[in-house]
Amino acid sequence: MAAQDLSQKMADLAAADDPQATPSASKSAQEQKVTPWDVSGAAGADGKVQAIDYDKLINEFGTRHITPELLERFEKVTGHRPHPLLRRGSFFSHRELDAILTRYEQGKEFYLYTGRGPSSDTMHMGHLIPFLFTKWLQDVFDVPLVVQLTDDEKFLFRPGLTLKDVRRFAFENARDVIACGFRLDKTFIFNDLDYMGGPFYHNVCTISRAITTSQSKGTFGFNDSDSVGKLHFVSIQAAPSFSSSFPQIFGERSDVPCLIPCAIDQDPYFRQTRDVAGRLKLPRPSLIHAKFFPALQGPGTKMSASNPNSNIAMTDTAKQIKDKINKHAFSGGRDTLEEHKRLGGNPDVDVAYQYMGFFLDDDEEMERTAQQYRSGELTSGEMKKKCIAVLQAVVKGFQERKAAISDDVVRQFMDRERRIDPRVKPRGEKKGDVPVVGTTVGSVGEAVKKVEESK
Amino acid sequence: MAAQDLSQKMADLAAADDPQATPSASKSAQEQKVTPWDVSGAAGADGKVQAIDYDKLINEFGTRHITPELLERFEKVTGHRPHPLLRRGSFFSHRELDAILTRYEQGKEFYLYTGRGPSSDTMHMGHLIPFLFTKWLQDVFDVPLVVQLTDDEKFLFRPGLTLKDVRRFAFENARDVIACGFRLDKTFIFNDLDYMGGPFYHNVCTISRAITTSQSKGTFGFNDSDSVGKLHFVSIQAAPSFSSSFPQIFGERSDVPCLIPCAIDQDPYFRQTRDVAGRLKLPRPSLIHAKFFPALQGPGTKMSASNPNSNIAMTDTAKQIKDKINKHAFSGGRDTLEEHKRLGGNPDVDVAYQYMGFFLDDDEEMERTAQQYRSGELTSGEMKKKCIAVLQAVVKGFQERKAAISDDVVRQFMDRERRIDPRVKPRGEKKGDVPVVGTTVGSVGEAVKKVEESK
Repeated sequence: MAAQDLSQKMADLAAADDPQATPSASKSAQEQKVTPWDVSGAAGADGKVQAIDYDKLINEFGTRHITPELLERFEKVTGHRPHPLLRRGSFFSHRELDAILTRYEQGKEFYLYTGRGPSSDTMHMGHLIPFLFTKWLQDVFDVPLVVQLTDDEKFLFRPGLTLKDVRRFAFENARDVIACGFRLDKTFIFNDLDYMGGPFYHNVCTISRAITTSQSKGTFGFNDSDSVGKLHFVSIQAAPSFSSSFPQIFGERSDVPCLIPCAIDQDPYFRQTRDVAGRLKLPRPSLIHAKFFPALQGPGTKMSASNPNSNIAMTDTAKQIKDKINKHAFSGGRDTLEEHKRLGGNPDVDVAYQYMGFFLDDDEEMERTAQQYRSGELTSGEMKKKCIAVLQAVVKGFQERKAAISDDVVRQFMDRERRIDPRVKPRGEKKGDVPVVGTTVGSVGEAVKKVEESK
Repeated sequence: MAAQDLSQKMADLAAADDPQATPSASKSAQEQKVTPWDVSGAAGADGKVQAIDYDKLINEFGTRHITPELLERFEKVTGHRPHPLLRRGSFFSHRELDAILTRYEQGKEFYLYTGRGPSSDTMHMGHLIPFLFTKWLQDVFDVPLVVQLTDDEKFLFRPGLTLKDVRRFAFENARDVIACGFRLDKTFIFNDLDYMGGPFYHNVCTISRAITTSQSKGTFGFNDSDSVGKLHFVSIQAAPSFSSSFPQIFGERSDVPCLIPCAIDQDPYFRQTRDVAGRLKLPRPSLIHAKFFPALQGPGTKMSASNPNSNIAMTDTAKQIKDKINKHAFSGGRDTLEEHKRLGGNPDVDVAYQYMGFFLDDDEEMERTAQQYRSGELTSGEMKKKCIAVLQAVVKGFQERKAAISDDVVRQFMDRERRIDPRVKPRGEKKGDVPVVGTTVGSVGEAVKKVEESK
């Protein structure tokens, strides 16, 4: 759900060569399709699947661009420079993000809500990036965060998995989420199979009464062969959007809105949630949408969690990361070194450059690197070396934090009885001695230093 | 659910005069239809709706008759003479009741499961009769009973009700259920809105993964305009059929089967449950089916909970019962006393006689009364007088028990943490000092005596 499986979605997209789109087909042989269950780009006249047209999605879904003006306001209101994922357009679209900024200005409560469908017990970088961004948002706003692990969804959608499997995945995924640096005093992580009940279930019923079978089918592309569990699941993903699902945080208040960072393909869930909220006179959740996370091999091969060479796993060693980037990262460079020196490379399609851009805070270094690549001064090998250093630093930080997280700490984060203070601190007030874990790397130099320290 | 709203169903049936069934229509102008949401008899050539053909239902649903041989075995195995509701055919059909008798013979665990949809905070006699029968079954078998109050269902199916309404109804209905005489040490009553979660929710997911939208539609007659909550609800009514939904009784055991006493219109729920159970290698629930409870005014008027003159409410005074039977009970007598004396009455359609038959234990008295009515010796007024005495005695016993049930006792019955011993005691062993509350009245004379004592 929410932030999940960004990279998987990208892979699905890449693999979506539609056999029905013949070379003789017209220009609009196949429209692009983006739902939580199905992501495929348009098929052109040549039968080839094109990249997702994100502007078109904004039009279709009726969301808004994150404009330079909105980012300016974000910086002014929060006192924080936007995260690289924001300024470089990975989070590109929103619904009423401005309303959340206004509440923050006014010192009124809100919370963050994101999640993941725990389909395996390991997570890779594509899974983690949205959580790293959410962690950054939590540092910026200092508000409660709820993380839904939809183990029931994975059970419902994957006949091969048992309840025991998905609950174990949820617990292990929680450990990975915590390793992104979330603060215990402001974070509640829950898996549906154990949290279902009480006020959360009451909200599920309220929502499931307000969504027709036809709406669920239309939004997600289900048909009558799909299980009633699948059709109903939308109610369960919608429920954490309402503050009364969390009495340990908000008591009986149902008037506290949330901001949901998620991949754009999850928007249908929350469009329906917003529609229901309007009818129930509850606050509509705000959203901030990410593009799909690009696959390691670029948009022509299939990324898969079961193929270790197709992704950067958060368990990879420094050497594995190095080998994977060197061997598998799609390059925007030329076929030969001579040609590259003469004609230059293309950073816009270079996976190493793109990956680096998710974490590197230094805009000047990013721009300089791009120019050097375009001019041919920087080779593909050198670009990869920079990327490797950045990813190694990020993964190392993650692994160090994760190593310190005992089962007991996971259980604390998932304790449904634990109270969380929902109040927003006045802006500018010191946040106490809560350590802020970096989700970015200042420069490639810093990254190299950090990785070398551990040798 | 299960035993609920028998009388409402009868009323729906009575009111089901289909305007499309014109007098010129053929003999099979409209087939009879019985689902949990829709009960209507066939419309004949004259356009009139006929009574439910129960034999046809047994054929259609694929259930079995409760035969004299089965009743004989019941008596032999349990050492108890069958309840009047059994011997007089109100409980007329079953699925694998014999398998439960075999388990009882072998001293192997099983449990009883029934329930009700709490649509209001008062219950009338039509609601209570199936519970009185279940209470008798509990006395006979001395096994655990779980009672599901489907407040979520009522919320999902009735847009005018709030969560607060249905939870309150559930609590008040629990008090009425307890007043039927159930034993605390063997009975767990729960409302879904508060019990949902943990192993119960896990079973809901297991079931909702195994039922397709098309199966839910086909069984219950839903369409795409119905909410996803409605389509999904079947999973929630099915879940208590599996013993692992009740860890406080059965631990992690999922191999203990149950016997479900319910109205025949609930069979589709459990047919689907049995189908799912087969595929999941879980024990299939056994069933024992009741006919619809006849309405006070007979099958030509509409019984309604909102019309106090249409039913015997469990809160009615002795005088109200007397007035209702005298004024409203459909009579099988003749138009004039003279005609009645000469031609005799028909006890088979006489509501007073029928009602009396649900509770009166004395077969000879029942038979004698019928003969006297047929011969004209007994007038309608005298028949009603007998019925009034029996109903007054039953309601009085109920009211006395109910008056003693505090909120705290209700909470004890509904305590999800309370452990219940699932073991079956060897047959013939003394049942301790647990008082067995009578669900029948020995004779009309006894009934009169009981009511007069309270004056």
